Amino acid sequence: MNLDNIRIVLVNTSHPGNIGGAARAMKNMGLRNLYLVAPHKFPHEEANWRAASAGDVLEQATVTATLPEAIADCQFVLGTSARERRIPWPLLDARGCAGEVAQRCANEQVAIVFGREDRGLTNEELQLCNLHLNIPTSADYSSLNLAMAVQIVCYEIRMVWAQGDLPVQADEQWDTPFATQENMERFYAHLEETLVALEFLDPAAPRQLMARLRRLYGRVRLDEMELNILRGILTETGKSLQRSRGDDA
Amino acid sequence: MNLDNIRIVLVNTSHPGNIGGAARAMKNMGLRNLYLVAPHKFPHEEANWRAASAGDVLEQATVTATLPEAIADCQFVLGTSARERRIPWPLLDARGCAGEVAQRCANEQVAIVFGREDRGLTNEELQLCNLHLNIPTSADYSSLNLAMAVQIVCYEIRMVWAQGDLPVQADEQWDTPFATQENMERFYAHLEETLVALEFLDPAAPRQLMARLRRLYGRVRLDEMELNILRGILTETGKSLQRSRGDDA
Repeated sequence: MNLDNIRIVLVNTSHPGNIGGAARAMKNMGLRNLYLVAPHKFPHEEANWRAASAGDVLEQATVTATLPEAIADCQFVLGTSARERRIPWPLLDARGCAGEVAQRCANEQVAIVFGREDRGLTNEELQLCNLHLNIPTSADYSSLNLAMAVQIVCYEIRMVWAQGDLPVQADEQWDTPFATQENMERFYAHLEETLVALEFLDPAAPRQLMARLRRLYGRVRLDEMELNILRGILTETGKSLQRSRGDDA
Repeated sequence: MNLDNIRIVLVNTSHPGNIGGAARAMKNMGLRNLYLVAPHKFPHEEANWRAASAGDVLEQATVTATLPEAIADCQFVLGTSARERRIPWPLLDARGCAGEVAQRCANEQVAIVFGREDRGLTNEELQLCNLHLNIPTSADYSSLNLAMAVQIVCYEIRMVWAQGDLPVQADEQWDTPFATQENMERFYAHLEETLVALEFLDPAAPRQLMARLRRLYGRVRLDEMELNILRGILTETGKSLQRSRGDDA
């Protein structure tokens, strides 16, 4: 997968802020080839401001007069589209498209084309595309901001690129080993003994107390340091109980 | 899954444009509960402008002085975080978090907390969260715009919400049935006959021509209307050939 073989093409963009926002969105996700087809205002200070540290993407952007010029050397072209079209065209959501892009961009030039803020791409422009791309939205308000659409598509490409590199377990990256079952059993024994000594647990009528505590600590998956802290508390509790009995005696 | 049980919480936002952009991003994905913790400028015309048709989300936003107030009634709280933290915390990427949110939001109040544009959330704020959320970015430029981060997270929630509702095949929604194998074989026979008549195909030395044509049309999966169009062309070609032979005779 070669992200440098992917270009983002913005057609007839009205607001320079969207060009800047798109440039930042691209660079955040590791893309850098921006093509601008007849932008209304470019270069523009609003684009620079919204690009933040992605000014280099704007500086290196290619401006063309027409869409065919911007995609002339591409082997695979995707166009963003609302879902309903008079003539259906091969259509995938952004995630499906990112999978297609990932397969192609190793050896081919890939273009992803975004239309005007108010009207998207024309039917003629969409018919230049191999595949149409749709981002699922709410029926109540389906019109995504242009830079946001670029962000989502670039993010989906990044997610494919990063696969295998991402944590799938919430506690995959941890600073202390998790407790072994053996140490957990020592802890539960220590806990039970302490609760009996505290007269919080009646061995004659234990009810579900230990089961509930096992469920609690089992669910949280204690690490060794946390286990040591809890056992330290139990040890201190035990000492304190012995002292108070010594005082009583 | 009840999207109305999810709130987006923005802490100490500096730029009102980001508040507006976040509101639009939310509404585009079907979310509407926005909480603003001590925003620098709100309400503000820049927020209204960027919200576009999501002005209602801004109007109904809840402003609080502190983060604990904004999340007081929540059972599950996620906080956005850069990936490296001194004390590791349960951490998932935006997609993993969306899965967690989907499971919880049927019956619980869920908050997703986003920090300041320049510094994110403090360690103290992050420790109020059950789970930390990280959006994968390029190491070259990892700082996402705030509204963009909100967009990606809301999009991932929408994707879970919409599962089963999305096309997984590019040609899943089509206006004409795809051709049966029987009709495809009739087409190939008609095509071969025509190519022989045209003397384009030599039956004595056919080489791989028909195999290549089968591969081409098999790959494209013709629909019945397209098949009729192609067979119409073959029929006309055949008539024209007969006429030209009639003229020759």
